Amino acid sequence: MNLPKSIQTLIDELAKLPGIGPKTAQRLAVQILKRDLPAVEKLGRSIIEAKETLKLCRRCFNWSEFELCPICQMSSRDQSLLCVVEEVLDLIAIESTLEYKGLYHVLHGAIAPLDGVGPEQIRLPELVERLSQEPAIKEVILATNTSLEGEATAMLIYRKLKDFPVTITRLAKGIPMGGGLEYADDRTLGISIKKRSTF
Amino acid sequence: MNLPKSIQTLIDELAKLPGIGPKTAQRLAVQILKRDLPAVEKLGRSIIEAKETLKLCRRCFNWSEFELCPICQMSSRDQSLLCVVEEVLDLIAIESTLEYKGLYHVLHGAIAPLDGVGPEQIRLPELVERLSQEPAIKEVILATNTSLEGEATAMLIYRKLKDFPVTITRLAKGIPMGGGLEYADDRTLGISIKKRSTF
Repeated sequence: MNLPKSIQTLIDELAKLPGIGPKTAQRLAVQILKRDLPAVEKLGRSIIEAKETLKLCRRCFNWSEFELCPICQMSSRDQSLLCVVEEVLDLIAIESTLEYKGLYHVLHGAIAPLDGVGPEQIRLPELVERLSQEPAIKEVILATNTSLEGEATAMLIYRKLKDFPVTITRLAKGIPMGGGLEYADDRTLGISIKKRSTF
Repeated sequence: MNLPKSIQTLIDELAKLPGIGPKTAQRLAVQILKRDLPAVEKLGRSIIEAKETLKLCRRCFNWSEFELCPICQMSSRDQSLLCVVEEVLDLIAIESTLEYKGLYHVLHGAIAPLDGVGPEQIRLPELVERLSQEPAIKEVILATNTSLEGEATAMLIYRKLKDFPVTITRLAKGIPMGGGLEYADDRTLGISIKKRSTF
């Protein structure tokens, strides 16, 4: 395409992000360039600075600027509750609900034997180690995805943790809030009937 | 939320872009941070550099690193064809089709009287001026959006240009390629019947 080189470079860089197709990259590039120079510089710098300053929390493997992430640093968090998630994105999503006040453990993946991702490739050994180091933990919530890989990972974690003196729970499954029944798939509708609750 | 400051800053900056909601900003931030440092630095720098180097082409108001944009610099482009678009994004979309070999004129907006955007707030006076400066132009394609504002802008341009010795055309309207009839709205379906062509 006959675009100025710097726009083309920007579009190409944006299109390298997973989930960003060429059309979305074009739209993003144009929206970025429509902002004023200080705002654009701030965005560009915030990207580089975030990457440069962030490492993994040594306790829960959340992203952190320090040895311990903000959540692990807060003594007000319920130290008896541990929520196991696949990705930092899941942690952010749960934090957004403001419903959860416990700790996290980020696996950074789910087991996928066909892709060569076994228990050792995710932060599962560290989870088992953590359970023996932190006797305060009383409940482990397995908040992995409801995909095949997520379910298999939850099952594997369950087997590895079942001899620890903790309750192991799983997020509730059912019809999404605000969702019409006719849009729910068969498996979701099936489990929502099976796990129905009293009014 | 209890996120490291640099992630929160990055999410906030991304969420300032139009069309990027908080969830998309979170997902983008995480996807950016998952790449390696050189790739992230390249993305951050490409954003800042694009904004710093780009100005508007003095002839067609496309973004450009030089006085004239790459398209205006190419003598191989058909100098008798002028395509008028609302935004640079529309120009990029038309260039992607590889179907168009003429020149462009970017209005940078559409008239919207209720929002205080009149003919003087977009590059319409410059278009009229250009028509008198470039007698080579034989056809003006009005490629504004099919929204109310886009249609009104096309009508206004038509009235301003109708005394010039140029043919004024408009993009074809109808059923999108690959689109099922049942998903087309009434107005699209209506115009596709009215403007039907022989097989």
